[in-house]
Amino acid sequence: MAGTDVLTPFRVLNGIHEASPTVISVRGRRLGNGHFGLIAGPCTVESRDQTLSSARAVAEAGATMLRGGAFKPRTSPYAFSGLGLEALEILREASDETGLPVVTELLDPRHVEEVAAIADVVQVGARNMQNYPLLVEVGRLDRPVLLKRGSSASVDELLNAAECVAKEGNERIILCERGIRTFERATRYTLDLGAVAALKQRTHLPVVVDPSHAAGERSLVLPLARAAAAVGADGIIVEVHPRPDEALCDGPQQLAAGEFRAFAAEIAAIASLLGKQIG
Amino acid sequence: MAGTDVLTPFRVLNGIHEASPTVISVRGRRLGNGHFGLIAGPCTVESRDQTLSSARAVAEAGATMLRGGAFKPRTSPYAFSGLGLEALEILREASDETGLPVVTELLDPRHVEEVAAIADVVQVGARNMQNYPLLVEVGRLDRPVLLKRGSSASVDELLNAAECVAKEGNERIILCERGIRTFERATRYTLDLGAVAALKQRTHLPVVVDPSHAAGERSLVLPLARAAAAVGADGIIVEVHPRPDEALCDGPQQLAAGEFRAFAAEIAAIASLLGKQIG
Amino acid sequence: MAGTDVLTPFRVLNGIHEASPTVISVRGRRLGNGHFGLIAGPCTVESRDQTLSSARAVAEAGATMLRGGAFKPRTSPYAFSGLGLEALEILREASDETGLPVVTELLDPRHVEEVAAIADVVQVGARNMQNYPLLVEVGRLDRPVLLKRGSSASVDELLNAAECVAKEGNERIILCERGIRTFERATRYTLDLGAVAALKQRTHLPVVVDPSHAAGERSLVLPLARAAAAVGADGIIVEVHPRPDEALCDGPQQLAAGEFRAFAAEIAAIASLLGKQIG
Amino acid sequence: MAGTDVLTPFRVLNGIHEASPTVISVRGRRLGNGHFGLIAGPCTVESRDQTLSSARAVAEAGATMLRGGAFKPRTSPYAFSGLGLEALEILREASDETGLPVVTELLDPRHVEEVAAIADVVQVGARNMQNYPLLVEVGRLDRPVLLKRGSSASVDELLNAAECVAKEGNERIILCERGIRTFERATRYTLDLGAVAALKQRTHLPVVVDPSHAAGERSLVLPLARAAAAVGADGIIVEVHPRPDEALCDGPQQLAAGEFRAFAAEIAAIASLLGKQIG
Repeated sequence: MAGTDVLTPFRVLNGIHEASPTVISVRGRRLGNGHFGLIAGPCTVESRDQTLSSARAVAEAGATMLRGGAFKPRTSPYAFSGLGLEALEILREASDETGLPVVTELLDPRHVEEVAAIADVVQVGARNMQNYPLLVEVGRLDRPVLLKRGSSASVDELLNAAECVAKEGNERIILCERGIRTFERATRYTLDLGAVAALKQRTHLPVVVDPSHAAGERSLVLPLARAAAAVGADGIIVEVHPRPDEALCDGPQQLAAGEFRAFAAEIAAIASLLGKQIG
Repeated sequence: MAGTDVLTPFRVLNGIHEASPTVISVRGRRLGNGHFGLIAGPCTVESRDQTLSSARAVAEAGATMLRGGAFKPRTSPYAFSGLGLEALEILREASDETGLPVVTELLDPRHVEEVAAIADVVQVGARNMQNYPLLVEVGRLDRPVLLKRGSSASVDELLNAAECVAKEGNERIILCERGIRTFERATRYTLDLGAVAALKQRTHLPVVVDPSHAAGERSLVLPLARAAAAVGADGIIVEVHPRPDEALCDGPQQLAAGEFRAFAAEIAAIASLLGKQIG
Repeated sequence: MAGTDVLTPFRVLNGIHEASPTVISVRGRRLGNGHFGLIAGPCTVESRDQTLSSARAVAEAGATMLRGGAFKPRTSPYAFSGLGLEALEILREASDETGLPVVTELLDPRHVEEVAAIADVVQVGARNMQNYPLLVEVGRLDRPVLLKRGSSASVDELLNAAECVAKEGNERIILCERGIRTFERATRYTLDLGAVAALKQRTHLPVVVDPSHAAGERSLVLPLARAAAAVGADGIIVEVHPRPDEALCDGPQQLAAGEFRAFAAEIAAIASLLGKQIG
Repeated sequence: MAGTDVLTPFRVLNGIHEASPTVISVRGRRLGNGHFGLIAGPCTVESRDQTLSSARAVAEAGATMLRGGAFKPRTSPYAFSGLGLEALEILREASDETGLPVVTELLDPRHVEEVAAIADVVQVGARNMQNYPLLVEVGRLDRPVLLKRGSSASVDELLNAAECVAKEGNERIILCERGIRTFERATRYTLDLGAVAALKQRTHLPVVVDPSHAAGERSLVLPLARAAAAVGADGIIVEVHPRPDEALCDGPQQLAAGEFRAFAAEIAAIASLLGKQIG
């Protein structure tokens, strides 16, 4: 009946698919093909103290990479939208101190150099999954890309976005499921773990899960993270804040730094059951 | 902005909630509060041989209850809709031989006596979650009820449907998540495990997950079942057929009887990690 | 990828399709093939006065049929669920006085005789679109059926439900679009007028639209009703209450009786532009 | 329960709201507050001949603006993605010849000068509704902006995106509904005309409707366009191609140039019934 874009075969991704599963290696940390990534850190870099404090906590508890937003896409133009370039410097310091590679979002193609100078992994956020100029830029980078699924993007469209990146030469892509938009309001988004299972069958790229945005509420993050590990994800990316109640962004869904150790242990146990090791 | 029915507090369920978690006990099998249920069997009773064969396989592999449809709601009036009363007799025989309690669906309030005479647990299917005359009938039964979430029902609406049953006196209710309808087509329905986590916080009723209907495809059933166990469900209900390729209904999503033992072992390992035992 | 029930061709409906468009005639009123139906009345029969008052107002303003619920499916068991059999008597009186045929919902297959004794058109509600025992019962009636689309049912599934009715012998079916469930909350449901356009191409059955439930708010009902007429619907079914603020059910979305005349005039003007006449 | 960004009041838009309805005036054409816009032209500029041919046809039939894509966001990187800067020259020529103002999409903030040099109205596409760097750029332009709703964006989010533009100083914003993503497949997207009615109540900005993308099929475009006019939209934006079967993009949903005159007449009749005039 009704059409959608007819999808050309994934020329580059299919080549990747035929090879063995992709492993993303950055500064001694691995993700994919049996290596489970624990990516943690604050939603947004708010200050030097908050970021270093969160980074130390997650590093000590076994995180394998540090996440943190410098540029935050926000629905309202009046919401806190990140410290920008200043945040990148803070992330670099946190990374230097803890040894954790940094995952941070690129929002504007005109910032690609500044972000790539700091980021070990460049994130493309859900709102930008079909921002083609941005996909082309990260496709030309010598940095792994963490590509988040749009909140109403299909699995096919996510793979097409990955193909846009791969076509430019960058095949080091981590796919990320972070919840889709449905009628249900018990959670902020509906985490689609069936999509993770389907992606694992259809591509050799690693797939990670962000349970924080989908949960929208701290107490739901751990069960969803366990489920993500059990469905076969290659890692999770989770928000951790030293004092979530004071967070400038998404406080209710950020884990407290103090509870991350126990959290990480539960996830590691499930990953281990599936024959995977952390990092 | 726009309204929905204003929901009265869950008078009966709240009373249940204040007590300790509900355990459903049938013929020596338990489900809830640390007891993980493995409910397995054919989608539909097609014949005596097929049903006995599936029942024996799942019993030997450690299932705790036998599922099987006598009356099948089907989208098209020309699809196979079950053997009806004849199927109930076959289920009784399978149950007698294996010792497994039977879970089967009641579709028509006028069949309540015949179904209750055989069923240890009476199922209300997703299409009937808001069939109020049916909810009233099962609310008056002396049988546990397995209440499936409608494919576009919210968590609130599922709890209201449970309240309809409980209000009539029957508080032995097992809630069941089986996937919601979204735009995504990589799976037949989107399994909403966030809803399971939310339900576990909001009620003391046991919650089970049906990964078969959501997956729509055999190879996705095991990962989704693992995720269900990991998110904290109290059991799973899964379709198993001796020869799925010959199934009259939902063949592509039914597990083969021969693969159920390994399947059950994987689920049991995760349940055990969460401190639960099978049955 | 993932399956849905494979749909058998619509044997009976296809036969209807090949003939000329179906016209539903009841007590001198027509709906379909150029005859536009204005079905109006209270959401629920609350009392004799309220129902007669609403019936007189809509009759005087040009309504072609009277709607009113005797049995109301409600999400919560504690919400007002209709006067039942007593309401049927009130509807009969309102119908006798105004001459308007009555459209009312059948909720329970065990009430089929009582409802059919009063109803000129028997409604199957959205929650029951896949209640197969109910579809079979109305399929055996000598009464037109108004079949509402489920809030997450596809166009294909609606046609299959219609086929279930037609297969039993009753081909006098009015399809009704009343909004589907989506993420959007600006309206209660998302009225899917594209589905109406698609249905008009795929079947010769008349299609009406219920803008009240989708709008969820009085001020949105008129624009949506105009759009329904303009997209090519064969009628609308709309809730009108003498004093909406005192309504026991869905007050915010019911039109006031006093504003129905102007409402009807706007709809009639659009229907006329499309070459249709009221009733 | 679960959160979304808490939305700050729309500071700038609220100011607009208090004033009289916004009218967008470009080169003698008006849109808003009683002026109905007929924006038509090819999905994508494929060649000089195709664009001039389409432009002449829609100009003669009464279109008030010319649409045409120079940069096309496409799901697959292998799909035709527009002629880019070359297309802008062709659009300028078509505009000069016909006198129609040009509406064309800006995809990359780095192209803002080239696009603004040609475009009378700059479009932000559905995939970019939350591309904040792009919103800031168009917010600083001295050009009206046509802002399309994302396929899973809520009405609130669309208004927030508009606020992002207005906050930068550009209050000449045309909102555009183009269909949301739902489970239904009878149409490509579900056109949400309830959102149009809600937007008309909540803002004084003009709202137009794109029926082509939602329909996904030519025969559904006219009924949906009629419905858009009837619900109270201030205009429609529709794809017209001289030979749709040869179109490089979205052929099945483009109207043939030869049928546009009759199409425009039907829409004008409904707009007139609502007291509006074309252009």
